[in-house]
Amino acid sequence: MPMKLYSYPAAPSARRARMFMAEKGVPVPIENVDLRQGEHLAPKYLAINPQGLVPTLQLEDGTTITENIAIAVYLEALFPSPPLLGSNPLQCARVMQWNARIELEGLIPLADYLRNSHPAFGHRALPGVVPYEQIAPLAERGRDRVERFAKILEVRLAEQPYLAGDDFSLADITGIAFIDMLSMAKLSAVAAPILQGSWYHHMRNRASYAA
Amino acid sequence: MPMKLYSYPAAPSARRARMFMAEKGVPVPIENVDLRQGEHLAPKYLAINPQGLVPTLQLEDGTTITENIAIAVYLEALFPSPPLLGSNPLQCARVMQWNARIELEGLIPLADYLRNSHPAFGHRALPGVVPYEQIAPLAERGRDRVERFAKILEVRLAEQPYLAGDDFSLADITGIAFIDMLSMAKLSAVAAPILQGSWYHHMRNRASYAA
Repeated sequence: MPMKLYSYPAAPSARRARMFMAEKGVPVPIENVDLRQGEHLAPKYLAINPQGLVPTLQLEDGTTITENIAIAVYLEALFPSPPLLGSNPLQCARVMQWNARIELEGLIPLADYLRNSHPAFGHRALPGVVPYEQIAPLAERGRDRVERFAKILEVRLAEQPYLAGDDFSLADITGIAFIDMLSMAKLSAVAAPILQGSWYHHMRNRASYAA
Repeated sequence: MPMKLYSYPAAPSARRARMFMAEKGVPVPIENVDLRQGEHLAPKYLAINPQGLVPTLQLEDGTTITENIAIAVYLEALFPSPPLLGSNPLQCARVMQWNARIELEGLIPLADYLRNSHPAFGHRALPGVVPYEQIAPLAERGRDRVERFAKILEVRLAEQPYLAGDDFSLADITGIAFIDMLSMAKLSAVAAPILQGSWYHHMRNRASYAA
């Protein structure tokens, strides 16, 4: 059984893993879990990932790895070229620093906004197996945080060609997942300067963009 | 100027960096930023870390690194022994996977609970420079998530001696930060089986525990 990625086309978290693999040139077969049909909460998938989340990387022997950062670290160790997690101690730190900031200050607040305001997420204000009701003030707070963080990224990209510095890295993959998820939430306007800049243009033209 | 860590004794995030350095045997000087006196929001510290958060690692040349995972990756590269981020691809993935899960499913929900319910955090429902009001239902949701995650850790520790598997790692540091933060929130009861188990006993007896 070859390595396999459990994924879903529209899920930003799964897209991050797909882009990482595309950048590595690793042809991992993909099996889609239809989140809209609730396949992620059905016994078959919960046996693979009890959290009911995508992505899950399944290795040859059936071992599973969850969490984007864990999948990235695993694939980086197996396929070191091109390096996507930095190639000296300070670069490695910068990749992790910006990857973490984009998750904590960008993706999570954006999910807070989207999942706590959009009717489609009704009793699913958090991904995963436990149903949680929407919390309206959390959506408001999320939107405010997203606006602030878009400005931070804008300043960063005015100073550096890529989010972690001089080289393309995992931080850019996480960054584009955040920027593109804004349109899902109809918040793209907060990133207008980024959408008109060279980083975004470059990202859209990378082969991995469509992964 | 030697490497220096900006820290605060009672901050779980800063404690994680201090424990990591203690495990490495790296004698990094510590400068405390008094969060209770608001020193983290004063111009002097914001010039070092504009996010107003601890920890910040400042290198010899003044370069700063923020985010625990970035500080860990940097120190692991400089001081590889003992390895705290795993020593083969799968182990490295497991450390990252559990470190991420403890952050996302443990520390963040616990902070949601504590900061949105305790009067001491009044207009500071999130750490950092932006004041946010408390959201009562977020405290409730946080508490529910903390209880569920404590059970997940309990099962994990019944199956493995350490959170990432056979060896002590960053995941255990993040895990003990979560477990000990429960008492700050008067929620230790949810982790009663863990507090009586061998992992907790071992962790308390490690030299780094008091860091």
